[in-house]
Formats: sequence, structure tokens, C-alpha cells
Amino acid sequence: MVRENAPLVHNITNYVAMNFSANVLLALGASPLMAHAEEELEEIVSISPVLALNIGTLSAPWVKSMHKALDAARRREKLVVLDPVGVGASKFRTQTALELLAAGGISVIRGNASEIRALAGADGRTKGVDSSESSDSAVAVAQRLSHTYNTVVCVTGATDYVVHAEGITALKNGHPWMTKVTAMGCAATSMVGAFLAVEADRALAAVSAIATITIAGEIAAAKSGGPGSFQVNFLDTLANLTETQIAERLKVEHWK
Amino acid sequence: MVRENAPLVHNITNYVAMNFSANVLLALGASPLMAHAEEELEEIVSISPVLALNIGTLSAPWVKSMHKALDAARRREKLVVLDPVGVGASKFRTQTALELLAAGGISVIRGNASEIRALAGADGRTKGVDSSESSDSAVAVAQRLSHTYNTVVCVTGATDYVVHAEGITALKNGHPWMTKVTAMGCAATSMVGAFLAVEADRALAAVSAIATITIAGEIAAAKSGGPGSFQVNFLDTLANLTETQIAERLKVEHWK
Amino acid sequence: MVRENAPLVHNITNYVAMNFSANVLLALGASPLMAHAEEELEEIVSISPVLALNIGTLSAPWVKSMHKALDAARRREKLVVLDPVGVGASKFRTQTALELLAAGGISVIRGNASEIRALAGADGRTKGVDSSESSDSAVAVAQRLSHTYNTVVCVTGATDYVVHAEGITALKNGHPWMTKVTAMGCAATSMVGAFLAVEADRALAAVSAIATITIAGEIAAAKSGGPGSFQVNFLDTLANLTETQIAERLKVEHWK
Repeated sequence: MVRENAPLVHNITNYVAMNFSANVLLALGASPLMAHAEEELEEIVSISPVLALNIGTLSAPWVKSMHKALDAARRREKLVVLDPVGVGASKFRTQTALELLAAGGISVIRGNASEIRALAGADGRTKGVDSSESSDSAVAVAQRLSHTYNTVVCVTGATDYVVHAEGITALKNGHPWMTKVTAMGCAATSMVGAFLAVEADRALAAVSAIATITIAGEIAAAKSGGPGSFQVNFLDTLANLTETQIAERLKVEHWK
Repeated sequence: MVRENAPLVHNITNYVAMNFSANVLLALGASPLMAHAEEELEEIVSISPVLALNIGTLSAPWVKSMHKALDAARRREKLVVLDPVGVGASKFRTQTALELLAAGGISVIRGNASEIRALAGADGRTKGVDSSESSDSAVAVAQRLSHTYNTVVCVTGATDYVVHAEGITALKNGHPWMTKVTAMGCAATSMVGAFLAVEADRALAAVSAIATITIAGEIAAAKSGGPGSFQVNFLDTLANLTETQIAERLKVEHWK
Repeated sequence: MVRENAPLVHNITNYVAMNFSANVLLALGASPLMAHAEEELEEIVSISPVLALNIGTLSAPWVKSMHKALDAARRREKLVVLDPVGVGASKFRTQTALELLAAGGISVIRGNASEIRALAGADGRTKGVDSSESSDSAVAVAQRLSHTYNTVVCVTGATDYVVHAEGITALKNGHPWMTKVTAMGCAATSMVGAFLAVEADRALAAVSAIATITIAGEIAAAKSGGPGSFQVNFLDTLANLTETQIAERLKVEHWK
């Protein structure tokens, strides 16, 4: 559905992820747009069905832009996905993510276990921007977050969890090399944005995005000799991925 | 001629394009330099034959730097190429591009049809930073722009047009996958800069740059399985491209 | 040793290098972290054993952040590596690099011959950010720098020199294509950071990093058809590189 609609995905994201996230969105069939200037956020939000916020290389002016864009998105009833990169590693990150959440209007949060735990005030052992914890450890706090902020919460890791009002979906696709390419998580967040733009059920949009990226990852890994060729094959695979491939490989479980 | 001279190309460009544009310039045989600090622009402009300005991820401080660099370039009689990314998508972009043009000293503009139409005040239907229009639709307005600002105008798309005082050159090389790698247009702009540094005829420099990038694109596409391998093969092809390959494949038409 | 310890490497680096440096650190087995906000530097420095500073796309706010991070690193006795990109090309770059050095606490400097000569006040003929000089020409000034600032100095080029209090190590591995991928030098600096985090002897850490990146480069070049595939093969090779491969290929000389 992303390919047919080529939705515009407006990203205010980090410097490390910008290029790769744009290429992932293009490979998926979406149309990436990166814009952070306060002067143009109202207009850019107005033409984009979805906004992806990512605090990976945050600074005060960018945080201000994120709030301004979120405010415009909320007024215009646009969908918003938040990637709280490195939350728990500094008070500035934790506070920024919590203030964005408190402002309201975040449809989906995607983070690793440490980030989701830190967001929920649990004792996250964040080591920089990588998670040192299993995603399983964050499911209970993700449920709390989901309830508090009326949002879908994706906890990604060896198993990916999509936690929402009606229950929990666990996905077991993917490959360890996905953690060896920088910004893969950030790109997943942008992909959630692309699916949100074309699928009204937010939890289903998140599940579809996670399934697509992890299945592309495992197909690509089987053809690759390391993280360099993996990144290349990942983009090729994503561009050529079929519904049939996804259906055949999907390892998913739902519970209430 | 770029390979023999390895010209320094000074870029003030967007965050998404910086890495890829630098790699494209290196593959071409040029020497990329990215610098935007006001404190050093006078010196950086003085050592570079050409300046490439790109407003893709503009913000107020960067716009100020672009004006400062453009002013230095004009005083020092350096060549300047402008990429008005996303013009038409926001007033801030349109106004910035028009003010840079009005300041004078832009030798070449390169944009897609929507951007060129928006620059000329025509009814551009810009959808984010990608064009939803055929490049043919922008030729007439490009002629007007070229005349008004005494500049060469490149309208890129399925057919690429180089519009200049003496006429129009149409190039029909390239491959659709060029739109599936982010910053390919931005890299084309930087390549125009590299050719401007070694070729006194500005229109010929633009035609050479467009021919080089599109022919590298079609050769690379034939070896690739998707946008990931295409990007890799594009850089390899560009680094190995010969005059003979260009001569054999070039599909070009001139008219007055 | 990097793979076993997966050290966190905190980078305040340039926009061009961020993505590639992060991917190189991941391929090496380290854990990259990019953060530049003043608000969080004290905490980020406190959790990272090493800080890599790179002035490639410097601007006043980033310089301020670099000083703040360096100050925190010095107080906390963290290791710091400095990449003085483009020093000599502008007074702003030269002054920034010299002020960072004068502040104290830089363990290792890595630059090309022009940069090292410019840092030492010698007549550097910097052409943008690429060196137009042989690394041999900078060994004497590197010794002076090493003595003045009590730091290890790496001069990279066709031959790489690691200059330190006890002598000089010359390494003759690598491949010319390493200069055709942007940010390869910046990534080398981040790699020095990763080795500093796991090896107490600073000169040995620098030698190990340079040996690793240049040997990965020559193995990758042998499999590649140009700079695009070279970059991909470089990351694959780095991720799979063994101690045996390094031992077999290492061309090293030490003298006092």
C-alpha cells in the first residue's frame, strides 16, 4: 500500500540517519522529506500526512522545531511517530522525549528496550544509543506507556513487540546484522511513519512496518558477507519485497 | 577534464546529500569541500573555483551563510551553481531561492520541473522535494528564468533540458532508479559545479555534467538489482567512465 | 580487543562523516555515539571512555560544544583524539584546532601532512581538505607537535606515521582508493578512539587502528571495481578481519 500511495513522510531526524532513512523510504516506495526550519514547519506539516520525530542528535534549536512541528501536526490531525534515541543516556534526552510525549499527539513510539524503559521511568541501563537489554524486559512498561499516552509502543530487539490498547503483537523476524548498520532503528521509525500514512489502524501499521523491515533484513543477510553488503542488499530487497515473501516468512503472535 | 584538474568544489549543501555528493565528486575526480561557517567563508571561497549552493535542509543561519558565500563568490568572480530543493513547498524555500537569485552571480540553476516552475512563479505542484511534473512543462518558464537572471537553467527529469541564451539542449539518457537514490539530484548539482570549474562555456559544462551522470546511471542500472546496488554501481561506473562510453550512448538534441 | 569490549566511542564530528564513521565503528565491533548538545555533554562524556573530536564542518556552536566536551573529558581523565580537518584552509579552522590543543587533554592527533604541518605553523599547502603533500614531509613537525602537546601524532598518507615520545612507527599498508571514499580519514580517527578505549599504550592503540584500517582497505580494494564497491567491501572486510590477516600483511618499521 505504501508503493501505490507513495506517501510523503516528513522527518525531523538526526544527522547520522538522514541519508539512510531517506534511501529506505525511497526503496519502500514512500517519498521522504527532511525539513526542520521553524519558518516552514507549518507548511511542510500541512502537506505531509505523517511526521517522524527522532532525537538522535538533538540540540536546543532542533527540539524547538520538533515541538513546533508536533503542535502543527496535532492541530491538523496528522499522524506522528517518535523515536526517543538514547533516552536514559542524558537528562536532556529523557526530558525532551517526555515533553514531546506530554504535549500529546504521538501516535506511535519506537525504541529499544533501554529507551522504552527509560521513557517509562524504569531503571534503564542505557549504554549510549544501543540497548544492553532484551526487548522482553520492556513489554510491561511499554503497556503502561501505551495506556498513559494513548499511543502504540514498538519495542524492537531480537523479538519485536508492538504494544497497543487491544493487546500485544510479537514478531520474531530479523537478523543480528540489523544492529551492525547505523540508523537501522531510525529507518524503522520512518517506515512506521510511511505505513501510518496508508493504514488507519495504528497498531497494524506498526506491525506491517516492523514485519517489512525485519523480513527484508533476514532475506538480505542470507546474501551478504558483512554489514557493508548487507546494507546494500537490504535496500535492494526492500525495493523488491512481495506480499508473498512477507506472508511466507512472518513469525508473529498476538495476545491480549 | 575534471579528472585532470581535480577542481575543488565548495558545497554549502543539505545534511542528507553531503556524504553522497562528496563521494560522487570524488568518483568524478573532483575534490569536495563542505564548509558553512561564516567565519571561514571568505577564505574557503577564495581557494575554490566554484561554489555549489543547495537549500535542501535550509535554516536561517545556513541561509545567512549562503548569502555570505555568494557575495564573496561574486566579488571574486567565482562560478556558482544553485539547487533550489523543494522550492514551492514552503514560502521560506521560495523566498530564499529568489533572494539568492536576485543577489546576482548564479551561473547555473539545476532543479526538477516543479522547482523551476515555482522559481518562475508558475503554478508549481510541488509534492515535497520530488517533482510530480514532467520536465517538458518547465522549459518555457526556464527560458524566462534564464533570460531574467542571465543564467543557465537545467530542468532534470525523464528528459533533461539545459536552457541557455543560445538555445535549448535536450538529453534523453538516464534511468528511473536515479529517482530512487536520495540526493542524486543534489549530486548532479555538485557535478555541474565540477564541470563549471574546468569548462568556460557554462551551458556546455552543464550539458557535460548531466550527460556524465545520466550515462553513468544507465550503465549502472543495467548491472543492478535494486536501489542499493545501483548506488554502489553508480559510483564505480562514474569513476571508470570513458569519453568513448559517453559518445556512444549520448542522446542529445539542440535547438535554438 | 575492540570486538570483545565493544567500547562506546563518543564522536563530535562533521556532517559528512557521521554516518560512515558510525558504520565503520560498528563494523569494527565498537559502539558509536554521536552527541553535540551542550546540555548533555557532561553526562555523555561520563559514560564514554573516549571522545573523538573532528572539525570537518565546524561552526561556532559546535566549537563551543567541542571545548565543553574536551573540558569534561579532561576532568574525568577520558581519552581524546582530535581530527583537525582542513586546518590551514582557514584561520577559523587553524585557530579552533590550536585552541583545542592548547586546552590540554588531547591524547592523539590524526591528520594528513598538510594539516599536521599547518597545526605546527609550518608552511602547509592545504588544498581544501585533501592533502597535496607527502606524509614524509610532516614527520619532523609531527615530532615537534608531539613534544609540545604531549600527544601521539598520526600523519596519514601513502606511508602512515605514528609519532610519539619513544620514537616513530611507519606503516606502509593501504590503497589509493582510500582517498576516493569521503570521510575515510575521519573514520580512521574514530577507529583510533576505539583502540584507545581498550589499549593503555596510546602509540600502540594508534598503530593498531591505522594497521587495521589500511589492511582492511587493501584487502577490500583487491575485490572492488571502483570506490562504490570498495566502500562496501571495506565494511565487510573490517567486520571479518582476523589477527592473522593483519600479522601476515603488516608492513611496519619502528625507529627512535
